[in-house]
Amino acid sequence: MPELRKDPVSGRWVIIATERAMRPSDFRTEPQIIKGGFCPFCEGNEDKTPPEIMAYREKGTQPNAKGWRVRVVSNKFPALRVEGNLNKRGEGIYDVMNGIGAHEVIIESPRHIISMTELDNDHVEEILWTYRDRLVDLKKDKRFIYGLLFKNVGIAAGASLEHSHSQLIVTSIVPITVMHEMSGCEEFYKYRGRCLFCDMVQQEISTGVRIVVEEDNFVAFAPYASRFPFEIWILPKNHSSHFENLQKLEIEELAQVLRMTLLKLEASLEFPPYNYIVHTTPFVFGEIEHYHWHIEIIPRLTKVAGFEWGSGFYINTVTPESAAEFLRNVSTEKKIEE
Amino acid sequence: MPELRKDPVSGRWVIIATERAMRPSDFRTEPQIIKGGFCPFCEGNEDKTPPEIMAYREKGTQPNAKGWRVRVVSNKFPALRVEGNLNKRGEGIYDVMNGIGAHEVIIESPRHIISMTELDNDHVEEILWTYRDRLVDLKKDKRFIYGLLFKNVGIAAGASLEHSHSQLIVTSIVPITVMHEMSGCEEFYKYRGRCLFCDMVQQEISTGVRIVVEEDNFVAFAPYASRFPFEIWILPKNHSSHFENLQKLEIEELAQVLRMTLLKLEASLEFPPYNYIVHTTPFVFGEIEHYHWHIEIIPRLTKVAGFEWGSGFYINTVTPESAAEFLRNVSTEKKIEE
Repeated sequence: MPELRKDPVSGRWVIIATERAMRPSDFRTEPQIIKGGFCPFCEGNEDKTPPEIMAYREKGTQPNAKGWRVRVVSNKFPALRVEGNLNKRGEGIYDVMNGIGAHEVIIESPRHIISMTELDNDHVEEILWTYRDRLVDLKKDKRFIYGLLFKNVGIAAGASLEHSHSQLIVTSIVPITVMHEMSGCEEFYKYRGRCLFCDMVQQEISTGVRIVVEEDNFVAFAPYASRFPFEIWILPKNHSSHFENLQKLEIEELAQVLRMTLLKLEASLEFPPYNYIVHTTPFVFGEIEHYHWHIEIIPRLTKVAGFEWGSGFYINTVTPESAAEFLRNVSTEKKIEE
Repeated sequence: MPELRKDPVSGRWVIIATERAMRPSDFRTEPQIIKGGFCPFCEGNEDKTPPEIMAYREKGTQPNAKGWRVRVVSNKFPALRVEGNLNKRGEGIYDVMNGIGAHEVIIESPRHIISMTELDNDHVEEILWTYRDRLVDLKKDKRFIYGLLFKNVGIAAGASLEHSHSQLIVTSIVPITVMHEMSGCEEFYKYRGRCLFCDMVQQEISTGVRIVVEEDNFVAFAPYASRFPFEIWILPKNHSSHFENLQKLEIEELAQVLRMTLLKLEASLEFPPYNYIVHTTPFVFGEIEHYHWHIEIIPRLTKVAGFEWGSGFYINTVTPESAAEFLRNVSTEKKIEE
């Protein structure tokens, strides 16, 4: 059984996933993405993944067979287990609980594509609907507190398969980064009576210098204190604390803004490795006024050194203003021959 | 002039180092360590670095010439500038100040060695004395609040030169990781009246399962909630809040414990890339009872994926107990033929 252990100093929880256990010699070779070979995520190989949890599929087709457009399965090497109880306990000064949670893979296309941008807007919308459906389903389980949606693209970003996919980890704790963001926003709210992210959106739109894509309901911009070159955040313009409360028309526009932003990154940086992650409000809260869900996109262009790891203090060699200007101006038209 | 910008949500400061500015195309090739070629850190090449700030050298030898054992120079591409004032100001809801600080390189040996463990204990002691001397010197400057000592070894850990060296970044803000650690410890202290790290040391010594090296005054152990496989912390057993207050006899022992720990990591993991970082109390505080300086050593064995970046929530596939057991038992005797 994996364990969730808490560092008493920082309050950070760590999953000790013993079932994926490795010996020292396992670390001596660089991880590789298997290219060109067999892909368990491709249509026709449905029996090579754990059974499907849900799928959007053509009428009349069977689960775990062809005919799907987006498909959700358990991670084959899950960091957390769904069955069991939390059994929260102490070990002297330390806190520990069972590693209960869900770890799912959202396979974004039956075709072997590398990037979500190869899909049309309608298909990207379906991926976002899948995100929403899984959150709504999993939050019914009272053991679960938080759903973390994320995407790893490229080996430098931690991906082990190239077929376009996202992941969802649902846990019994709130990740510390979200906890710190929420306290920051709460302090601001106590003082000003407004959502900090709403103020940020307003200032970004009015100055315009860090904007990458702007539509009626969503804006993508390079954050003022970007940690990484070409880091981009996507936010709903109107206040909303929970990703899963997205309206249908908003999902249509979000698909467009997300796809456009990724196209711009790909065009500028020649298909960089990247991660994105959805920061949303924990399940236990209803709609709240002080936290604002958003997506953080982090191209993995530079090696993160000891300074950054040990301090949380980043050195960024590209100003967000110049990154945004570059991305605003880059053309996303696909080459004819493609 | 580089800028220090604050993310209003998390409170995290970022250095926007425009003078190191890069264009998108600069990110398209993987960074490389130049091996075998010219090394500006080797004895005889003193004029290829910025002028020396201090050195431990043989009597009668001149600055910026041969005869040194440990040598400190400014970073050739400093993230921060020493001259100027902070000019703290607002930009709407954002906070910004000039990127004032020091960014120094500690060259650990005149010989072209890759690992600090190739040096004898006396030499490692001198490196630790250098750390101390630089902190003591820089804390006299009232613009500076924090001194961050760290080491990058190997390209995966962000090193750009292989010649063994450490770095010191001195800043006008407290890095957020240290700030969070200090608040965690302060809460514990308010509640229990004791230092959390002191309690941790006591529990680790009494259970013994996570201990890697133990001497009279220092202990190296795998932390209970290790984020990374083979992560190791080194702590003084007796309470001490500031690294720079080390006693002479303690430095002797710390050199031995640090060298032994690194030898064990190198022997177990075949010279892994790693970072270490010294967490100490900000300059503005005198000796305090609730924070305890320590060194965090992080082997860089796994790619950190989106999940970890975006959440601060880590998945570790090696239990700290099995890592510690492995490291305790590994032999650090050098092979005869070396």
